[in-house]
Amino acid sequence: MSDVTTKPRRSRANRRPTRSAISGQNPTLEVPYITRRIPTYDLLDDTSLCRIEDAADEILATIGIEFREDPETVERFKAAGGTVTKVGEEAWNITFEPGLIRSLCSTAPERFTQHARNPANSVDIGGDAMVFAPAYGSPFILDPQGNRRYATIDDFVKLTRLAQSSPWLHHSGGTTCEPTDIPVNKRHLDMVYAHIKHSDRPFLGSITHPDRARDSIAMAEIVFGAEFMEKNCVIMGNFNSTSPLVWDGITTQGITAYAERNQGSIHLPFLLGGAVTPVTMAGSIAQSLAESMVGVALTQLVRPGAPALLATFLSSLDLRSGSPTFGTPEPALGSLVMGQLARRLKLPLRCSGNFSTSKLPDAQAMTQAMFSMKAAVQSGTNFILHSAGFLDGLLSMSFEKFIMDTDVCAAMHAYLKGIEVTEDTLGLDGLREGGPGQHMFGTAHTLRHYETAYWDSALDDYQPWETWHEQGGQDAVARATARWQSQLASHEDPHLDPAIDEALLDYIARKKASMEDAWH
Amino acid sequence: MSDVTTKPRRSRANRRPTRSAISGQNPTLEVPYITRRIPTYDLLDDTSLCRIEDAADEILATIGIEFREDPETVERFKAAGGTVTKVGEEAWNITFEPGLIRSLCSTAPERFTQHARNPANSVDIGGDAMVFAPAYGSPFILDPQGNRRYATIDDFVKLTRLAQSSPWLHHSGGTTCEPTDIPVNKRHLDMVYAHIKHSDRPFLGSITHPDRARDSIAMAEIVFGAEFMEKNCVIMGNFNSTSPLVWDGITTQGITAYAERNQGSIHLPFLLGGAVTPVTMAGSIAQSLAESMVGVALTQLVRPGAPALLATFLSSLDLRSGSPTFGTPEPALGSLVMGQLARRLKLPLRCSGNFSTSKLPDAQAMTQAMFSMKAAVQSGTNFILHSAGFLDGLLSMSFEKFIMDTDVCAAMHAYLKGIEVTEDTLGLDGLREGGPGQHMFGTAHTLRHYETAYWDSALDDYQPWETWHEQGGQDAVARATARWQSQLASHEDPHLDPAIDEALLDYIARKKASMEDAWH
Repeated sequence: MSDVTTKPRRSRANRRPTRSAISGQNPTLEVPYITRRIPTYDLLDDTSLCRIEDAADEILATIGIEFREDPETVERFKAAGGTVTKVGEEAWNITFEPGLIRSLCSTAPERFTQHARNPANSVDIGGDAMVFAPAYGSPFILDPQGNRRYATIDDFVKLTRLAQSSPWLHHSGGTTCEPTDIPVNKRHLDMVYAHIKHSDRPFLGSITHPDRARDSIAMAEIVFGAEFMEKNCVIMGNFNSTSPLVWDGITTQGITAYAERNQGSIHLPFLLGGAVTPVTMAGSIAQSLAESMVGVALTQLVRPGAPALLATFLSSLDLRSGSPTFGTPEPALGSLVMGQLARRLKLPLRCSGNFSTSKLPDAQAMTQAMFSMKAAVQSGTNFILHSAGFLDGLLSMSFEKFIMDTDVCAAMHAYLKGIEVTEDTLGLDGLREGGPGQHMFGTAHTLRHYETAYWDSALDDYQPWETWHEQGGQDAVARATARWQSQLASHEDPHLDPAIDEALLDYIARKKASMEDAWH
Repeated sequence: MSDVTTKPRRSRANRRPTRSAISGQNPTLEVPYITRRIPTYDLLDDTSLCRIEDAADEILATIGIEFREDPETVERFKAAGGTVTKVGEEAWNITFEPGLIRSLCSTAPERFTQHARNPANSVDIGGDAMVFAPAYGSPFILDPQGNRRYATIDDFVKLTRLAQSSPWLHHSGGTTCEPTDIPVNKRHLDMVYAHIKHSDRPFLGSITHPDRARDSIAMAEIVFGAEFMEKNCVIMGNFNSTSPLVWDGITTQGITAYAERNQGSIHLPFLLGGAVTPVTMAGSIAQSLAESMVGVALTQLVRPGAPALLATFLSSLDLRSGSPTFGTPEPALGSLVMGQLARRLKLPLRCSGNFSTSKLPDAQAMTQAMFSMKAAVQSGTNFILHSAGFLDGLLSMSFEKFIMDTDVCAAMHAYLKGIEVTEDTLGLDGLREGGPGQHMFGTAHTLRHYETAYWDSALDDYQPWETWHEQGGQDAVARATARWQSQLASHEDPHLDPAIDEALLDYIARKKASMEDAWH
């Protein structure tokens, strides 16, 4: 083989650029929320989408939704045209003419802003905006040694700080873990306080009881003021239907509490295929659409124009063990379809995140997480809860997985930028400067672009084997442990006006004093 | 909350289906190759694609490709209209009028069959067909204890058997690992023999020297016969350009050896962004297209109609360490675009697989693998080399990662089936049978579909924490080790006609006797 030096060329030895030590934080990618610049991945054609919409209509018209222990909500739907049948002491089945629920949803905004106490951190929800929030609802913490224990308020505070210190999340989330050391009827006060105190990003309030929803809103009011909230969303609740086809009274009253104050709400059927929804994905999607639209419709009956999100949580089921499975192919496909349906409805969408059934933050966990998260991102979903920390089918929160997942979130910031095709990015000047057979490390084109060209992981090891081995040969989990510990150690809480802080603490003290502890 | 029993319903207690013990092998998904039933994910619009194609044309017209030590290939391109300039002792730069190379590619088939010695395992390459093959080229093996050692022919045989025993690969691959215990000039004979002896799927032959390419083809001829090969593809070679913009003589002579026998070839630029290609993805793609088209064009000059694949291997670069990075966002986007360009050219495409830079089969490895593999699958690529085992930037083959990756390949079989929307899959009969608030485990719809509704991992653990913990609390790596060991223990080689076996061994013995050992 001839040597490349047979053709005279300028020497570029030792001109390789050295990057400044930004620890993979890619500051040029940091944004308060992502604006998606890649197309959505549209799986189904219009005919199939129409069939699913028709099936959702048929579910609502011929099977109906059961409402429980909330006559006020039943009255609202009756007045709007629903056909009510009493089916139990405090239970009513309501059917809806095809198209009725869809038309009730039409007053909800296609896009809105959820304001943060730091205005620089306010997020848009809807359209081409995308927001990442931590996982929500785990009772357990998986410690770095792989042991599982109940979560506490101390964990909750740490997770709130960890989220706040990550540039790759945009939202503080809600019940990042269950603080099981605080009574069930009081822990919402400590959680909302932690979100306000240790984060200056938007957050979710309580939904476990209408009183707790109202407490959450009242605490938000201490921060933002009633007047501002009358016109702006500053807090949201994440509500679950009781699938199949039931909305219970605790939930519909909670939805009402948020909507009447013009605050946001998410309407989520949790669908385990074969358990509470047809085991075939088309049916799950139709049911998800029907149940979620009913939640959104309720908000619009309470207050037209209140912000509301369609939502979907599709899970396959391991029919051998009866366990839900996450990060599998069928729900990933389902997410893509839900994205299409939400856009047709002109509603913002919440869908899957970095899901996993693994007990450990291992290879299984991240295979599943990436399968699920990429589907969410490609579906064009607007609000991705469970973006960080989700393990063991949501039973465990893992600090290590939290770090791994935020690194995935970081990668998604680059992915969602897409590829720009311009004279500059085509870079023919660079190829011409070198010519065939010549390295390009030192070309003007490389020097101009290398600092921003590629996403740079904060966690992954790219070093040669020998270097990595000499440095201890750490795996991804060990690196993640070191990172969350250093991230927490260097974190400082954002400033909070002492008068607001005092007012919040006073509100909490009064509320706690007014109730006996309840542990269930 | 009211109790669901207020409404009388049929009891379905204990009617939950029990699945037969198929160990997650989902036999209904098994196919000799995949037929993609989901749309491709088309990232760029036509305007951007045309700009990239124009840039590729401009590279070929104004910078040109350097050919080395192969005057015959230079003559072929000159005769076809290229403008040749001598640039060194044995080096020629050739430029091509815009559109010339593209037009030379047009006689290559859009889709063809690579025949296996077992006709049931023949694969289609092109169109909506998709083929998964193991990783190719690692000199090292990562053992289950995390130690790295040189690979041997014993490893090669094991990997060939492991691939053959997996229903989720379709192709035996080529240099699954480098058998470093055999001289460099002889190991191709043992590798080709291992593919024929221990597998009855299609495989890749040698490309490291034209003589070795011809040996590979001669051995295929012993199995398939010259007459059959005259009209059918039974072996392929995977060729790399010497980027940027060089095709060396060893390679072009190898391409010629395959094409003149009407056998297949893959034309792959290995592009490390910022090192041998512009650091911006649009430029990498344009260069990849230009270099790869030239390889394909050569096959058509040698023998119009010979099967040839466009190929792409885009990698970002960690500019701090100078190491290539895999499984990152930009190359994933690039794969999607290459899929679009290949379809416009009407050529089959090879692109990225389960890539990773991790040293271990850990969370990093599978995050990167899934990011990369999903892009390959969504790009509609036809031949995915590196579908199993790829670690440490291809320096290490890991049996554990091999198993994890084949499980990802299995999931992709389900993913690529898409979602069917029919009256049956919409499942309203199931919802109706239960009605609001009722579990669906025992509905006729669930019973009819549960065995085939969801992909079932052969590797992932879905059990409750307590069960998993009692059973030893294994992580994904430990399960993968157990699985490859049991898969190998139970594997039986497919039948091979003893006369063919003898003829192959005789050919190898004669060739080996004719050469001194060479170790470099």
